[in-house]
Amino acid sequence: MTPGEIVTTFIRALERKDFDSACSLITDDCEYDNVPFAKVYGPDGLRGVLEPFLANCGGVDWVIHRQVEAGPVVMNERTDRFEMGGRWAELPVAGLFVLRGDKIALWRDYFDQGQFTKAVSG
Amino acid sequence: MTPGEIVTTFIRALERKDFDSACSLITDDCEYDNVPFAKVYGPDGLRGVLEPFLANCGGVDWVIHRQVEAGPVVMNERTDRFEMGGRWAELPVAGLFVLRGDKIALWRDYFDQGQFTKAVSG
Repeated sequence: MTPGEIVTTFIRALERKDFDSACSLITDDCEYDNVPFAKVYGPDGLRGVLEPFLANCGGVDWVIHRQVEAGPVVMNERTDRFEMGGRWAELPVAGLFVLRGDKIALWRDYFDQGQFTKAVSG
Repeated sequence: MTPGEIVTTFIRALERKDFDSACSLITDDCEYDNVPFAKVYGPDGLRGVLEPFLANCGGVDWVIHRQVEAGPVVMNERTDRFEMGGRWAELPVAGLFVLRGDKIALWRDYFDQGQFTKAVSG
């Protein structure tokens, strides 16, 4: 797989809440940085942030509008959609991924905290 | 110039507050979207947002950490630095640019409004 295909596979695993598959695609020291919030590290860090959050969602649908890659760097523009309480919350996101070998070593998502809060609170 | 080189040239022009050069690199209907704020269109829209803001800055230094391109799409990760009142404000940004021919037709910057407000207010 190319770095871009690895990133797409990773996102599709998260949509299925398949954390075992997702975590098999990141390095043990992977930095996961939600820019307006905080950074966490490694599979445990990623699970700690996303498992409880996605557990509160019905469907998870992260639409990749555009994705470009060069060497180990992948960037994409997404609308991350979360089904919560019977409606779909939507968040505009730009993501940066840097691979080391065939695993993701950095995942940094740029978005607006206010838009996130508004989206998930309805 | 490649699309990426056009984007870099555009950003360097804005750093110099050279709006004539910057506007020569965008389409007449260019969409300039600051995601947490609003969209404006064309050279007049871009000037209306950025000229008064940059006039309040001493130095303008937009550091491009990573930039990737594919076809007409360019994405970059930046720290946009603005010298205001004798100090440098810094904003983490992810930018998307889509070209039409040799001009930028879409410029969309993803960042956190709270980080922007905090940065420029000191």
